[in-house]
Amino acid sequence: LAKHNQAKVLYDFSAEPGNNELSVKEGETITITNPVNITSFSLTFLNWNQCVLHIMWLGNLKKTLLCVTGVLGLIYERLSSACTCLTSGAEDDEWDDEWDDMKSTSGYPESESGDSGAIQRGARLFSCCTDALTLNRRKILIYKNLVSVFGAQMGEVGPVWSYPTTQLDCVVADPKKGSKMYGLKSYIEYQVTPNTTNRPVNHRYKHFDWLYERLLDKYRSAIPIPSLPDKQVTGRFEEEFIKMRMERLQGWMTRMCRHPVISNSEVFQLFLSYKDERDWKTGKRKAEKDETVGMMIFSTIEPEGPDLDPLEVEQKCEQFSRFTKAMDDGVKEILTVGNEHWKRCTGPLPKEYQRIGKAFQNLSSVFTSSGYQGESTLTDAMTAAGKTYEEIALMVAEQPKKDLHFVMETNNEYKGLLGCFPDTIGFHKAAIDKVKEGDQLVATSKITPQDKTMMAKRVSVMSYALQAEMNHFHSNRIYDYNRVMQLYLEEQVKFYETIAAKLRQAHSQFTTM
Amino acid sequence: LAKHNQAKVLYDFSAEPGNNELSVKEGETITITNPVNITSFSLTFLNWNQCVLHIMWLGNLKKTLLCVTGVLGLIYERLSSACTCLTSGAEDDEWDDEWDDMKSTSGYPESESGDSGAIQRGARLFSCCTDALTLNRRKILIYKNLVSVFGAQMGEVGPVWSYPTTQLDCVVADPKKGSKMYGLKSYIEYQVTPNTTNRPVNHRYKHFDWLYERLLDKYRSAIPIPSLPDKQVTGRFEEEFIKMRMERLQGWMTRMCRHPVISNSEVFQLFLSYKDERDWKTGKRKAEKDETVGMMIFSTIEPEGPDLDPLEVEQKCEQFSRFTKAMDDGVKEILTVGNEHWKRCTGPLPKEYQRIGKAFQNLSSVFTSSGYQGESTLTDAMTAAGKTYEEIALMVAEQPKKDLHFVMETNNEYKGLLGCFPDTIGFHKAAIDKVKEGDQLVATSKITPQDKTMMAKRVSVMSYALQAEMNHFHSNRIYDYNRVMQLYLEEQVKFYETIAAKLRQAHSQFTTM
Repeated sequence: LAKHNQAKVLYDFSAEPGNNELSVKEGETITITNPVNITSFSLTFLNWNQCVLHIMWLGNLKKTLLCVTGVLGLIYERLSSACTCLTSGAEDDEWDDEWDDMKSTSGYPESESGDSGAIQRGARLFSCCTDALTLNRRKILIYKNLVSVFGAQMGEVGPVWSYPTTQLDCVVADPKKGSKMYGLKSYIEYQVTPNTTNRPVNHRYKHFDWLYERLLDKYRSAIPIPSLPDKQVTGRFEEEFIKMRMERLQGWMTRMCRHPVISNSEVFQLFLSYKDERDWKTGKRKAEKDETVGMMIFSTIEPEGPDLDPLEVEQKCEQFSRFTKAMDDGVKEILTVGNEHWKRCTGPLPKEYQRIGKAFQNLSSVFTSSGYQGESTLTDAMTAAGKTYEEIALMVAEQPKKDLHFVMETNNEYKGLLGCFPDTIGFHKAAIDKVKEGDQLVATSKITPQDKTMMAKRVSVMSYALQAEMNHFHSNRIYDYNRVMQLYLEEQVKFYETIAAKLRQAHSQFTTM
Repeated sequence: LAKHNQAKVLYDFSAEPGNNELSVKEGETITITNPVNITSFSLTFLNWNQCVLHIMWLGNLKKTLLCVTGVLGLIYERLSSACTCLTSGAEDDEWDDEWDDMKSTSGYPESESGDSGAIQRGARLFSCCTDALTLNRRKILIYKNLVSVFGAQMGEVGPVWSYPTTQLDCVVADPKKGSKMYGLKSYIEYQVTPNTTNRPVNHRYKHFDWLYERLLDKYRSAIPIPSLPDKQVTGRFEEEFIKMRMERLQGWMTRMCRHPVISNSEVFQLFLSYKDERDWKTGKRKAEKDETVGMMIFSTIEPEGPDLDPLEVEQKCEQFSRFTKAMDDGVKEILTVGNEHWKRCTGPLPKEYQRIGKAFQNLSSVFTSSGYQGESTLTDAMTAAGKTYEEIALMVAEQPKKDLHFVMETNNEYKGLLGCFPDTIGFHKAAIDKVKEGDQLVATSKITPQDKTMMAKRVSVMSYALQAEMNHFHSNRIYDYNRVMQLYLEEQVKFYETIAAKLRQAHSQFTTM
């Protein structure tokens, strides 16, 4: 029995009668006998690894094999319609270490051929994340039915990733100064709390950077990975800077969490929910040795649905390429205009309102010195009006932080994201061109017809992935711009309404004569 | 009988029984027998001259002598508390041409001595404005009681001018291009309509300038006469310029109308309500020959109340001098700040809003090109938001004309007005210094003690006038700044409320997801 498909039970769990649950005791070992659907399970296991509470055995045929309550509830739902499971029956039975052999084992009512590649790839991923798992209670058979390794399905808008029912999310907060080497070296540590475990882990910027590098290595050919917020050498410990960096790390993490492939990845899960320092270090070492990087990533993606029309794929790519270029221009325009507006709103404009306020107040105090009777109503009102304009000056200067800021941040994020697409698209185009040359290459015997078929298949997977990624981008973009425009306009409305109210108040102090 | 105290009745008027009215028939001549209070009456006569409808005889003792309904109703009120009148009884009696003789005539129950100077001065003014008047029906005796030639009374705040109950006002409107010399010379003619006659007269800018010069000659030592709006050589016929000049002429005329001394003056009345070209030309020639100019003007002012304490007068003048200097600085500050704000509001700021609007719309049209489904709610909303910012840009650019403009115009007016005060004050100071030297001059026999007393009396009149003028300035200032601040804030409130409403509308088009 391979150790990587075993898990040690961390907590007691008593099965409830009638629920098809499996009672387990702390310290027992359970064995997973069919690790198909391994990507989904890698998540399961990672979380399991940290917070397994219950392991439920729900029996066979299109019902969920494993369901861990709480944070793993989502997997229950996700798998319940996708998995068919069987138990091998006998306790303490051993499985062959050779995954391919599983296929040949009888007792899988809906066994499919041609899954060996996926299963092997799955096994590979699986091996990365079962370190802390040891299984020894029952042999559990998992039969892949509908879900692919990385889900990519045909949706209404074309290929789309399989999204989890519950969105992974995390909060980056509470930056604290830490130090190493007896205080010689200081750094800022941020607390990252995922909604799955609700348990905070600490990370420095360089950890985020490490994660970024891992994701880039692993996914860049399929998924554009936006850059982290810039490194900064000076002023690293200034409050403003720390706040801004935290906010941007939050934005980056949110985007990563929202991505079904990335959020589901072992390295990302490690980052979000490592158990302790040892766990983190082990995980790190493993992630750095991950070989499923670059082009390899496509071998872990299994599109479902018919092959895509290559011509249509090319057109879609062209359109998307034009789109990202145009959007890049549009986003940069907003950033330029926003930047100018920001400067005006925080610089000359409030200064001007302040001067208007001061001018009114000065004239008011001149009036007070007139020695003329019955002046006070006017001078009080003018002083109040002047103060109102000084308040407006402050409001104007503070406003961009409340609204324009988010427009800028969102567009900055998109600028970064859009900057990643040419690579991803170029990569895909090169693959398409290669397939186009296919006949030529076969004719000149440079490749075999089988090679050509394989190439075409691989490109088809890439196209699926790219289109799923395009659609992911579009749906996120629509969400993000809706949200940020709403926020912006809401704050703008408040801003102008507050000014109007303040001025109405100032106006009321003047007497009608 | 002097012709200048006679008037020809222009319309029939039947006295109503019990009203103490006097029935007169067109063509009849009535005689005014006591032309004291001649300044007030010069107004009466001028208007009478043009629109006498009724002449009512109201009898004696503190009741009104003359009341002309309609536009002259104000004079009724003004005089009713200030005049005591008597008739000489017999029709067609003749009066001596010599005004001084009136005093010696019996039948004036409240006759006062020492009025001869005022009467003489009155006669002089009177003679200027009775051209078209011929009087021959009754001898009418007017007995001066409370009102001086130019009224200056002791009010709550110190010396104040006597104000008419109803404010003279006029509308400058309807600029029309006219031409002379067979079209070789063009000019713009404005229609000026006083609220007294409600009959428009036409004036070119050069007529206003002529009036300004007359008022300056006549009143500058007692009353600061603000300059007319600037002459301009190029672009005189451009609509914008004409509109602005008209508005400023209106402002200038309104200020002149509000001044009790100026509005009551013959030349001003001529300007407002000349009957025809001949009347205008005759009046012009007469005004140009007016000898009651410069220092002479103080001889037409008769302060009522005790002599002022010279020390207090000096202190008041010092205070006012400091005040006008400080206000001049304050006003200039507002003009500088306002000018900068104006430039920003009409230049870079709307351009920025426009660019923000365009940037949103551009991004929206990029989004439309995505080929992704379900995009239209966002793109429609973003386009609407973009258009809203373009509308805001227009609003921002137009706003200063609606509010800041009036702040600027008022402060510009005051800048001009304040610039006139140093002369007026300096003039007064010099006179005070001369009186201070009085004892010295008497001691060295350079003047007689009588001269010194006369000098002191004259300075006292000047002080009265200056302080009445200061108080006139203060009360107008309080009115003007109250009004302009109210207007400004009202428009500002509207402005910000409209923006908020527009943005709220734009906000509502985004969907909450």
